[in-house]
Amino acid sequence: MRPLRYGMVGGGRNAFIGAVHRAAAALDQQAVLTAGALSSEPTRARESARDLGIADDRGYGSWQEMLDGELARPADDRIDVVVIVTPNDVHYPVAKAAVEAGFHVVCDKPLVHTGAQAQELVDLVARTGVVFGVTYNYTGYPLVRHARDMVANGELGELRKVVVQYSQGWLATLVEATGNKQAEWRTDPARSGIAGAMGDIGSHAENLAATITGRHVTQVSADIATVVEGRLLDDDAAVLLRLDGGVRGLLVASQIETGTENDLRIRVHGTEGSLHWRQEEPNLLVHTPASGPGRNLRRGNDYLSPSAQKATRIPPGHPEGYIEAFANVYLGVFEAIRAKQAGRELGPLEGQFPTVEDGARGVRFIERVIESGASNQKWIEV
Amino acid sequence: MRPLRYGMVGGGRNAFIGAVHRAAAALDQQAVLTAGALSSEPTRARESARDLGIADDRGYGSWQEMLDGELARPADDRIDVVVIVTPNDVHYPVAKAAVEAGFHVVCDKPLVHTGAQAQELVDLVARTGVVFGVTYNYTGYPLVRHARDMVANGELGELRKVVVQYSQGWLATLVEATGNKQAEWRTDPARSGIAGAMGDIGSHAENLAATITGRHVTQVSADIATVVEGRLLDDDAAVLLRLDGGVRGLLVASQIETGTENDLRIRVHGTEGSLHWRQEEPNLLVHTPASGPGRNLRRGNDYLSPSAQKATRIPPGHPEGYIEAFANVYLGVFEAIRAKQAGRELGPLEGQFPTVEDGARGVRFIERVIESGASNQKWIEV
Amino acid sequence: MRPLRYGMVGGGRNAFIGAVHRAAAALDQQAVLTAGALSSEPTRARESARDLGIADDRGYGSWQEMLDGELARPADDRIDVVVIVTPNDVHYPVAKAAVEAGFHVVCDKPLVHTGAQAQELVDLVARTGVVFGVTYNYTGYPLVRHARDMVANGELGELRKVVVQYSQGWLATLVEATGNKQAEWRTDPARSGIAGAMGDIGSHAENLAATITGRHVTQVSADIATVVEGRLLDDDAAVLLRLDGGVRGLLVASQIETGTENDLRIRVHGTEGSLHWRQEEPNLLVHTPASGPGRNLRRGNDYLSPSAQKATRIPPGHPEGYIEAFANVYLGVFEAIRAKQAGRELGPLEGQFPTVEDGARGVRFIERVIESGASNQKWIEV
Amino acid sequence: MRPLRYGMVGGGRNAFIGAVHRAAAALDQQAVLTAGALSSEPTRARESARDLGIADDRGYGSWQEMLDGELARPADDRIDVVVIVTPNDVHYPVAKAAVEAGFHVVCDKPLVHTGAQAQELVDLVARTGVVFGVTYNYTGYPLVRHARDMVANGELGELRKVVVQYSQGWLATLVEATGNKQAEWRTDPARSGIAGAMGDIGSHAENLAATITGRHVTQVSADIATVVEGRLLDDDAAVLLRLDGGVRGLLVASQIETGTENDLRIRVHGTEGSLHWRQEEPNLLVHTPASGPGRNLRRGNDYLSPSAQKATRIPPGHPEGYIEAFANVYLGVFEAIRAKQAGRELGPLEGQFPTVEDGARGVRFIERVIESGASNQKWIEV
Repeated sequence: MRPLRYGMVGGGRNAFIGAVHRAAAALDQQAVLTAGALSSEPTRARESARDLGIADDRGYGSWQEMLDGELARPADDRIDVVVIVTPNDVHYPVAKAAVEAGFHVVCDKPLVHTGAQAQELVDLVARTGVVFGVTYNYTGYPLVRHARDMVANGELGELRKVVVQYSQGWLATLVEATGNKQAEWRTDPARSGIAGAMGDIGSHAENLAATITGRHVTQVSADIATVVEGRLLDDDAAVLLRLDGGVRGLLVASQIETGTENDLRIRVHGTEGSLHWRQEEPNLLVHTPASGPGRNLRRGNDYLSPSAQKATRIPPGHPEGYIEAFANVYLGVFEAIRAKQAGRELGPLEGQFPTVEDGARGVRFIERVIESGASNQKWIEV
Repeated sequence: MRPLRYGMVGGGRNAFIGAVHRAAAALDQQAVLTAGALSSEPTRARESARDLGIADDRGYGSWQEMLDGELARPADDRIDVVVIVTPNDVHYPVAKAAVEAGFHVVCDKPLVHTGAQAQELVDLVARTGVVFGVTYNYTGYPLVRHARDMVANGELGELRKVVVQYSQGWLATLVEATGNKQAEWRTDPARSGIAGAMGDIGSHAENLAATITGRHVTQVSADIATVVEGRLLDDDAAVLLRLDGGVRGLLVASQIETGTENDLRIRVHGTEGSLHWRQEEPNLLVHTPASGPGRNLRRGNDYLSPSAQKATRIPPGHPEGYIEAFANVYLGVFEAIRAKQAGRELGPLEGQFPTVEDGARGVRFIERVIESGASNQKWIEV
Repeated sequence: MRPLRYGMVGGGRNAFIGAVHRAAAALDQQAVLTAGALSSEPTRARESARDLGIADDRGYGSWQEMLDGELARPADDRIDVVVIVTPNDVHYPVAKAAVEAGFHVVCDKPLVHTGAQAQELVDLVARTGVVFGVTYNYTGYPLVRHARDMVANGELGELRKVVVQYSQGWLATLVEATGNKQAEWRTDPARSGIAGAMGDIGSHAENLAATITGRHVTQVSADIATVVEGRLLDDDAAVLLRLDGGVRGLLVASQIETGTENDLRIRVHGTEGSLHWRQEEPNLLVHTPASGPGRNLRRGNDYLSPSAQKATRIPPGHPEGYIEAFANVYLGVFEAIRAKQAGRELGPLEGQFPTVEDGARGVRFIERVIESGASNQKWIEV
Repeated sequence: MRPLRYGMVGGGRNAFIGAVHRAAAALDQQAVLTAGALSSEPTRARESARDLGIADDRGYGSWQEMLDGELARPADDRIDVVVIVTPNDVHYPVAKAAVEAGFHVVCDKPLVHTGAQAQELVDLVARTGVVFGVTYNYTGYPLVRHARDMVANGELGELRKVVVQYSQGWLATLVEATGNKQAEWRTDPARSGIAGAMGDIGSHAENLAATITGRHVTQVSADIATVVEGRLLDDDAAVLLRLDGGVRGLLVASQIETGTENDLRIRVHGTEGSLHWRQEEPNLLVHTPASGPGRNLRRGNDYLSPSAQKATRIPPGHPEGYIEAFANVYLGVFEAIRAKQAGRELGPLEGQFPTVEDGARGVRFIERVIESGASNQKWIEV
């Protein structure tokens, strides 16, 4: 089976998330970085391509060149998929053009800046039939999948409540004024969009809650702040939630919790039990049933759901982490692409990845939360 | 030094918290249960007194009898302090009468049903000069005291945010309909007051946050629900907070998080660091400074604040727990009573306990949160 | 029911463990400190008694005086039990005299200096019929009792292996040369006996393993060292074990593991599952069955064994600690004394405490381990 | 920079560790699987090669064919490195032939069956100058490197003691009789060698202790058993250790600790502090200094040593795991190969990987431990 070929937009020298995407795509040896427009600056783009062993004629100076150059190749030599890892403001034009050109797409989150752009992509994807994944990578953790499956199977009884928290501390000072590239674009409305922490990590929290519970947010009441003086976007938020089916919720997203690393955690409560998961210790899912002792569900064991078992590479007790979870999202996208290419349906466990619809829902969520934060009205409909 | 004498109101057979108070008062051998009106039912009250080794002439049939009976004794034979451990609705009349009769008082929380009653007690205590402690017992943990001292000393820099959560699961079903006495009165508005979870545990959370941060809540935006069908009071709540000095906050109180035991936890975030404490693992306080590794502050060590060191009995690594913390509140009250009796001032580390003012603030907080829960207005002033 | 009366030997000003015994005995309000010979120095002994509210005529200048003085009282006014909390070298004469005088006894561990002395006490106790408890206090933890009951009930299948570790760091330097009283006597062969760490904490480890597994050590192969230069007794040891019934074992006792507090932990492995318990987090017992997820057994829950449920005072999630466990040992002794006094048999859950036989076995264990440490022979019979 | 080319021996269909090696080698996109003799059965070998996308002319039927076939190619088209992932008995002939043919080698552990074979490889490597890595993969964890650097820098003071434990439960029953391929060869003396658990995981423990402390074992006193009836090799062991420079040690290796996954943990104790690390939670290294609170050193932070920082891909709080650590060993090997190819010296942080000498020391350790287990002599020299 030939490896898939991908072309990357963004992710050149000094970028962060591009390298993660490349490692995730490489881990299972299913895909090869074949082309790239790795920077908005053409020279840097080409040099970055050379660094990464991309052939010179496929190290493009811009994403438009890349799309054109690849389309000019014979179909069986073309990249299969465009991977977009730029700052948020570039997602929309690249994704739109790539989909219109018939490429499959993997795009980082949040999907785009506005709900209208998001809807346009949803419609385009529906029309063209391409595979479009959005890298809400935390959904790739095996125990997140198991949690989702437990909820879906009714193992928690009737769902009542979800509490999701995503806390970081790295923006507790005005690091964007100190030359930190990652901080610069994330706190710049022109590149990041209307939201800071809420877009960067709040959207992960929304997606994780929706993935595990299978419920979508219907109302929000948000308390949004910019805590660090001089910052242009929000960096701390708490949001009261209502989800489908009468489920209550709470979402916290903060980048000013000093000394905190990447503390994404979720609790899901039903009539028959609760689940507790922390991204910093991802190989453990604690299940506290309504009666009897709590249970430590651990990655890699045969008592886990088929999806959770499929999403793992090594036996229990050998930890898997962030890159492996990220790679699981890629595996789902790759399965979908290969099925598409082979003209076959996906198997029951195949093709698990966050879609363009998930991405669009995330954008709408961000819009409503920011609106709520500025409003005196208690609840805002989503 | 003679042990202090106390008389207990409530806490007879089948009661729960009365036994905890007695253990806490006994632990350090500073006080003796000398009198009691241990039940609202006179026969049971007297039998309970006999169970506990109270002399027959001081096992009273009612709290009124107890106050009268003790007042009738010579001053040097009288109880020093009245301990009130009844359901909430009885706190007010007993406390009022005891203070008016010149007894010192220890009263369980929440103090009383209404802000007006609370204010009356505050005024009475001010006028009579008695010692009046409210058993917000979690403040007695040594590491809670250390956390408070770190904040006060500026070790977290400028305070920004506090997140406090008090989660339980024991009311995830309608246990009040199954003969559970503890659940019955806590979910009965006549006995518990206007609030259920918010009164029972939300008030602990408020007090803990206020104790550690030294800041008081000024505004609330609450999402309050009664999740279990048939219940008469709230059992799940999330409250957005504003505290003095621009500190942001979040408070969660829930009794329907299935499988959860007594998960009271707090995080405090400042410009220079954060603190993390969990009541279920109370001998550890994690401090994450703005830079450098997190620090595990552990009970009993000489690097802790004088107050934290004073509030401990045994060396590091031998866990102390709930009763020890409760006993620390009692020690503070006892110190204050002895100082009063000796006509001397309290030393700098003496007399640490939640006062009637703390109790009154807690009652006002509950009132405002319940009001906010029923309101469409986003923020309510406290 | 009248409280029991106890007289304490040792435990005066500056002592440590005496205060723990008094708190443990006081916690459940079953016994009162009535007499004392609290120091080997008569003046200090009497002053210490006064500090503790002992009547002047029962604040004795020596333990001999105390035994004589109490015997001179009418039987219904006499102390019921003698509590021995002196350095180890004083245990033997006091215990012997107290038993011979017909008093019940609680004695700290290790019981005495030699196996011969221990056997003498065992025989004396058998002859006199007094109650004699040895405060291997860790056996009082509810989850230790539950672990013992699981093993006894066959829930781990056939037992294979036990690993017990007791690590501390407080003797990592020569603190006995710096005026530390606790370190001084523990490292002084005249007072502590032939063993240092092995006697002070290794004997706890042996007792814990024996209590939980119900198996006794039959062979040892020990590696014993004095790591800190200038110290007179061992401070670090590892011992390979054989126990009854083909069970393998390993015991570690160290007081030089820098920065470690009181890290007593045990793992028990059978064909059907394993147990894991740590004294520093005593409210959790992890059970890993042969298949299926690990289970977090937590103190206070109704799924625990009757003995474990009986040994707890407060609901799940409110931690109990060291003093509560210690108090459980006292409760067992008190039950046995009251049964003896009432001339009745103990009920099935009553009278759980380490006996003089446990104490004697501990002394023999220490002797054999020290012998093995000095021997080139691989295995030594116990 | 062209990717390195490797040929794999073993690791075909149904194998386990081969896939881990391939993922580890792929993760950082530094090497490509170019050739393979993936099974001892030629047809399966070729089919496995096809599964993995190896060109048909490089999917060899045997390792001899692979070495010959690759040597027959022009030097600039040849594989750079032979990766040996077969059962242990095949390591020696393949490694020997590969080194003699001038290939660089990566070989799984334990290196070979006998000390004599090991020494032969050491000598051969010295003579030929090839790069030879042994995949003691746990040394690749960033915090293991930081622990090593802390010890080397004297941050623990003078070293006193190391305790290393490697516990598993998967061989608690006779799974080798149930068709489990991984268990079959590991418990078969013909393939595994003289040791079972001691070879499979005890050697990892020895290597981890040696890596972190920089000290080698000089004496052992071992208690070795075959606990599961019918098994042909040891499955449970405890070994008392003496290391260079007066350091004491203890090593536990067990595969019968029911319900345990892959619990490799190590504690290192010095005069100034201790370190605690667990493979199942590898992103945390706890440092307990002689005074002051314990410190949680977490992967990815700038306070870690240069080697630890280099061995990480993603920011703090995004967990890295087993494959990433394994990949770090590969990165070290690849750096050494590229330096060799370029004729340049390795930089100060380059080329970190366990060498053939480490492998040979591991083999000698296994031999001595097994000898000690069968001996009545207390200590055996290594």
